Amino acid sequence: MEIPQKVRGMQDIYGEYQRYFTFLKKVSRHEFRKNWFTRISTPILEKVDLIKRSIWEDTDIVSKEMYNIIDKKWRELVMKPESTAWIMRSYIENFLDETQPVYYYYIEPHFRYERPQKWRYRQFNQIGAEIIWEIDPVLDAKLIYIWKSILDSIWLKDSFKVKINSIWTSKEREKYIEALKDFFANKKQHLDDNDLHRLENNPLRILDSKNPDTQELLKFAPKVTDFLKKESKEFYESVKEYLEILGVDYVEDHTLVRGLDYYCHTVWEFVDFSGRSQDALGWGWRYDELAKSIGHKTAIPAVGFAFGAERLIEHIMEAWVKLKNKDVIQLYFIQLWDEAKKIVLPLNIEARNKWLNSQLSLWTPSMKVQMKKANKINARFVAIVGIMEAKNWVCQLKDMESGTQEEVKLENLLDHVITKVWKDSLDFYDPAKDFIIVEPIKTEE
Amino acid sequence: MEIPQKVRGMQDIYGEYQRYFTFLKKVSRHEFRKNWFTRISTPILEKVDLIKRSIWEDTDIVSKEMYNIIDKKWRELVMKPESTAWIMRSYIENFLDETQPVYYYYIEPHFRYERPQKWRYRQFNQIGAEIIWEIDPVLDAKLIYIWKSILDSIWLKDSFKVKINSIWTSKEREKYIEALKDFFANKKQHLDDNDLHRLENNPLRILDSKNPDTQELLKFAPKVTDFLKKESKEFYESVKEYLEILGVDYVEDHTLVRGLDYYCHTVWEFVDFSGRSQDALGWGWRYDELAKSIGHKTAIPAVGFAFGAERLIEHIMEAWVKLKNKDVIQLYFIQLWDEAKKIVLPLNIEARNKWLNSQLSLWTPSMKVQMKKANKINARFVAIVGIMEAKNWVCQLKDMESGTQEEVKLENLLDHVITKVWKDSLDFYDPAKDFIIVEPIKTEE
Repeated sequence: MEIPQKVRGMQDIYGEYQRYFTFLKKVSRHEFRKNWFTRISTPILEKVDLIKRSIWEDTDIVSKEMYNIIDKKWRELVMKPESTAWIMRSYIENFLDETQPVYYYYIEPHFRYERPQKWRYRQFNQIGAEIIWEIDPVLDAKLIYIWKSILDSIWLKDSFKVKINSIWTSKEREKYIEALKDFFANKKQHLDDNDLHRLENNPLRILDSKNPDTQELLKFAPKVTDFLKKESKEFYESVKEYLEILGVDYVEDHTLVRGLDYYCHTVWEFVDFSGRSQDALGWGWRYDELAKSIGHKTAIPAVGFAFGAERLIEHIMEAWVKLKNKDVIQLYFIQLWDEAKKIVLPLNIEARNKWLNSQLSLWTPSMKVQMKKANKINARFVAIVGIMEAKNWVCQLKDMESGTQEEVKLENLLDHVITKVWKDSLDFYDPAKDFIIVEPIKTEE
Repeated sequence: MEIPQKVRGMQDIYGEYQRYFTFLKKVSRHEFRKNWFTRISTPILEKVDLIKRSIWEDTDIVSKEMYNIIDKKWRELVMKPESTAWIMRSYIENFLDETQPVYYYYIEPHFRYERPQKWRYRQFNQIGAEIIWEIDPVLDAKLIYIWKSILDSIWLKDSFKVKINSIWTSKEREKYIEALKDFFANKKQHLDDNDLHRLENNPLRILDSKNPDTQELLKFAPKVTDFLKKESKEFYESVKEYLEILGVDYVEDHTLVRGLDYYCHTVWEFVDFSGRSQDALGWGWRYDELAKSIGHKTAIPAVGFAFGAERLIEHIMEAWVKLKNKDVIQLYFIQLWDEAKKIVLPLNIEARNKWLNSQLSLWTPSMKVQMKKANKINARFVAIVGIMEAKNWVCQLKDMESGTQEEVKLENLLDHVITKVWKDSLDFYDPAKDFIIVEPIKTEE
């Protein structure tokens, strides 16, 4: 019988990779909370209509790139491919009556059926944030600043640059697209198949053409700035001004466009400028029209960003940043007698309550076997309790770094070791500081 | 057009509920890490064979209670209904060559298509731990102790009791089941339909019968202890002895059984004894035969437990434990002039870098509107910057508790407020303490 293997494109997260993931989550959570965001977790499954109406109007993509599911009541569901539409759905259901705007962040698994590659999985984690109900350019700038702060915190500040652009409002874009189409109408013979396809399906993407002929033509094409209202220009100028106040370096890139109608104004990407690639690792956008496109009667201004955890973890692991491993065993107990385990077990527990990482050997194989294990797990100190030690309530304490050994009384053991270990590796969280005990109000009997 | 609502049985987690969830995760993580567990995240989707071979041999249950999915390559997958089999699959794939035993914990969403009820969702979170490769009774006792420590940390120690039992090995059970069947063979006329069904399908569950007639009969039935090897008895006695050493109160309950063949020796449940219900909120088990049942050539000893986050959150929220809200705004900026926002924005950011929760008002509506908002979000201090203040580089600082107001120089503002706010609400995490910078080794040119 063959053992079922994990599904292609999926991953187990553990060990060093999990430690970097934890670090990234911790840094992100901290940065979000500092900026008054609270966490939201939306369900993995939603009705397929939500995604059809929002992200992927092209139903072909829904059927090819999503994990679709039909439940026992024949509901058509889809596993979350990204979170923005999910959070907007939740906003409309839960938050219309809250103090506005709302600030939410998320750290969630997402699912896409795409060709698996290194660091690209079919279940992948995205970290992101959304601010909903307000159309102040300071919010767009702040989100960009927060993402930059996360990169700063993990010491990747020099590897990334933010590219920004404005894609204006959908109405302005429509007019501009008309003008672009008119301009190219009698120049189609100069376009390659790729650009012709763009012109047909998503004309703004033609600005992004790599073909030198097209680029030459574009110099004479109408400029979007000629089609904008004063407010749209001012909005974009303000975003840039706030970014400067916040000390965020940015690069304007007018080829940065988004295909879907509900995007507007500010779009941005964080791009790897370390020289390795020019891949984007984070994406931001204003999406004031999304609520309407999923069925709400009015537009609801909103702005958000997301980044892929796996790609960023790859960058951290390959950078100079080495995480401290706080899970090293500082005190390892070896017992050479079954009864000794009963002495050692409560000490092992007490050590932990004193924030000392401690573990005990199992069963009672030979001293040699147990020492080998202590070496393998890199224990800092080893306390050996044999029959004589148990009777005299002492242990042989071996310093695994220096190789020295001394006899220590068991009642002094923990304090003795604590004075010798590296303090930073202790973990001092005290749950009791996170809450208060409120006595219920007594009712008269 | 109707707005797609969230799917029946699913939930959005946010606000106060999310804060309790975060607290529960934090306490659990801490307790696991103290005990040398590291985190593992397995994929949501696995091949349906994994679950068919392990948890739910009854394929009817797989098709009725699971979320099944067929991917684009016609693979039959299932959304994780519980984590033990997933982690054993991962163990066989990844950890056979690691230092043994391995200690893993998880905090993961799980999926079951069951009738939704209050606090019972179709996507629900389970927190659990597994120790694999070792059959030392000290491990069973430690897992029970860890679960108890989590309950202690969240102040629920008095509401729960742990019920324990041994269900021995599958071979011993087989013999005992034969004897039970023989015993009841000529007493079927005394059994009700329910118990007859049990006798047919899962004879051990008859021990759990609520029927007084059956209970009377059971007094004369063969006892499992007569069918056990010395080692099995000793194992169970050791678990109990270690629990006593660790100060864990337990109740023995010989009706506590598990239906599946791969369970063995220790099983336990954490049961609500607060008087409200006798529901189990956590389950533990030894499962030495699971590896074999999913296709590994030999048995791999393993022990683990899990608890449902939602049910436990319900308990915490209803108990006396009130979480401190660390997300209160200590300093709120009100600007009465567009240009003032540019002064206030960097102060807002600087405040956060000094660990002071701060937020700024958006746009520049009237003083009245902005003060109303400051009140609504319970801001502790409000700094007002109008045209005159901006010119003189000062602000009007209003203490929202006392109602007093004073003029403060902007360069002194943050330090001034920091001396006055409740220190516990500040959040002091410094990511830079979690890592070191390692310069790459220079290679000779």
